[in-house]
Amino acid sequence: MKSASLKLIRPLVQKLHPYTPGEQPKIQGLIKLNTNENPYPPAPGVLRAVRSATDQRLRLYPNPTAQPLREKLAEFHQCAPANIFVGNGSDEVLALAVRGFVEPRGSTKSSRSTVQFFSPSYSLYPVLAETHGAEANACALNDDFSLPSMEELRQGKKWDFNAALTLITTPNAPSGRGYPTLELERLCAAQKGVILLDEAYVDFASENALHLALKYPHVLVARTFSKAYSLCFQRVGYCVGHPDLTAALDKIRDSYNVNGLGQIAALSTLNHLPYYRKNFRRIIGTRERLSTQLAALGFAVLPSQTNFILARPPEPPAERWLDLLRERKILVRWFSHEKVRDFLRISIGNDREADALIRAVEAILQRPH
Amino acid sequence: MKSASLKLIRPLVQKLHPYTPGEQPKIQGLIKLNTNENPYPPAPGVLRAVRSATDQRLRLYPNPTAQPLREKLAEFHQCAPANIFVGNGSDEVLALAVRGFVEPRGSTKSSRSTVQFFSPSYSLYPVLAETHGAEANACALNDDFSLPSMEELRQGKKWDFNAALTLITTPNAPSGRGYPTLELERLCAAQKGVILLDEAYVDFASENALHLALKYPHVLVARTFSKAYSLCFQRVGYCVGHPDLTAALDKIRDSYNVNGLGQIAALSTLNHLPYYRKNFRRIIGTRERLSTQLAALGFAVLPSQTNFILARPPEPPAERWLDLLRERKILVRWFSHEKVRDFLRISIGNDREADALIRAVEAILQRPH
Repeated sequence: MKSASLKLIRPLVQKLHPYTPGEQPKIQGLIKLNTNENPYPPAPGVLRAVRSATDQRLRLYPNPTAQPLREKLAEFHQCAPANIFVGNGSDEVLALAVRGFVEPRGSTKSSRSTVQFFSPSYSLYPVLAETHGAEANACALNDDFSLPSMEELRQGKKWDFNAALTLITTPNAPSGRGYPTLELERLCAAQKGVILLDEAYVDFASENALHLALKYPHVLVARTFSKAYSLCFQRVGYCVGHPDLTAALDKIRDSYNVNGLGQIAALSTLNHLPYYRKNFRRIIGTRERLSTQLAALGFAVLPSQTNFILARPPEPPAERWLDLLRERKILVRWFSHEKVRDFLRISIGNDREADALIRAVEAILQRPH
Repeated sequence: MKSASLKLIRPLVQKLHPYTPGEQPKIQGLIKLNTNENPYPPAPGVLRAVRSATDQRLRLYPNPTAQPLREKLAEFHQCAPANIFVGNGSDEVLALAVRGFVEPRGSTKSSRSTVQFFSPSYSLYPVLAETHGAEANACALNDDFSLPSMEELRQGKKWDFNAALTLITTPNAPSGRGYPTLELERLCAAQKGVILLDEAYVDFASENALHLALKYPHVLVARTFSKAYSLCFQRVGYCVGHPDLTAALDKIRDSYNVNGLGQIAALSTLNHLPYYRKNFRRIIGTRERLSTQLAALGFAVLPSQTNFILARPPEPPAERWLDLLRERKILVRWFSHEKVRDFLRISIGNDREADALIRAVEAILQRPH
């Protein structure tokens, strides 16, 4: 029997299976390689900027349109501030895109109500569709996690070229695989609805597709300050695209969606890019070394263009590895999705953390299970 | 003719008239009495807590459920953490309530699609309804901005006792009027859908209705750290209510909706309440003095239970006063709503700002217009 309160909640929300974020435990000495955070802190100048803004101005509302940050981002990406929309993390940008471009099911024909994505990818995508009462159209990637060809999409697959919104993580998670910009552009050229390319991990990749957002009126590229720029705590993400699309997102966001210290941290970050670029190189170096070492220990490591790797461990099963590593105070991520359930997703920490992981793996392999 | 991008945007969003927040200009020496910000800074201990958390931890995701803050708030309100939902400002709480409890129009009968509120009140409410594709049912307050009686609601007014969601700002904005808790409880007892009492200004009032959220399974009370607690910049609001209702909001929010430094600032605020209570008394003192002085200059000042006053100036018209005060670098707020267009809404600043306002008013009254 439903309680008095439950009846007041929309049936759609009652049935909802919310997205499960990776654990954020506060255990002493834990090595946290489960949520793709950056092992290096923000630039000292960024921390100084935040600290020195922490004064009486906290009593005032932040800039409602993140204007100074948008101006700086426009300079960075060689476009206009009107091409930039800033959100409370790029998760908010994704959620607003669903609400701005996709009709809830029922009143309208199906493509207008369709959120489309490749699978496996960011497991938030089907949740966003479900939350909005929209159709989720998940289209399987190839077995090696590469994009299906245009011919395959046109024929074998249930791809919808008219889907209201297509969400593509590129490079992809949890595979770590980068998609060639040429293939993404071919897809953009053929697609009728909005395409949002989520480049959360692009700073660890060899190419990016940002120019597509300035070339095509239906393409948005999302970026975040969380991962590459060590600002998860502060919740700042953005997207680049046609002013009509960014204006639509702007209309449906909360008035003061981006907190003030987050705006200040992000703005200051753009003044310290060489610091971050050095860290990208370090993380890529650690990624390549860790991949080689894990491969030598019998892991099948997929090539990565991100700050994590997807690796299939030798026996025991991957889900068991999750627990065995956790017993050794190392947290990695495991997904139940059938295509990746034999894998672990391991965020790239610093070299000390990579060494600790290798030692733990060696210890686990030396015992019977 | 519509551009290629415009066609990709939901018709509902294209037609939307977004909420206009008060101006946030950065003009030197401006006295800002337009957005109900607190004239006093956060407690020194709160600023210290934020500064000392500004270190390598910014690279990590914040607590996804604002757990320590919810525990502290539960202690403060003598309830369980499950009774507390924390949002990216209370604006997010309001928006999520609409999405969690109200069906978009079309598929269902009208009360299930109705967002109801008294008018005039927070001008965001109809925008939230419109954004969600829901019905907005605005019910006129009495001419003195008091609540209609239960008899009036049952008979003369178009009040809907089955509305999916009723939003009530209490004390109200822009009137500044407090509603007796007894009248609010009578309304809660009769109402079938969810009632959200938005107590953004309650720390400046003589009573509050928080216990109703713990007594009735369909009542939520929203609070914010923005105004009374000088943290607009940081975006932290919350609501209290039945665990089924807070769990519904929890399911549809973004995974990391509340930034980390905001959580830290809010948590620390609750350890410095005597500092803030002293400021409430100062602001109430300034409010009473300013009200008396404006009345002596010919303003009709409504009694206020908030950190602002609604006052009808003598000639010239209120909208002209907005410009005349702005010329003297004093920013107040004017609303075009027919019931309040003859009034100015003036936030309560510090005593120096109140004195400057009185001097400006005297100067304006001494000249012909």
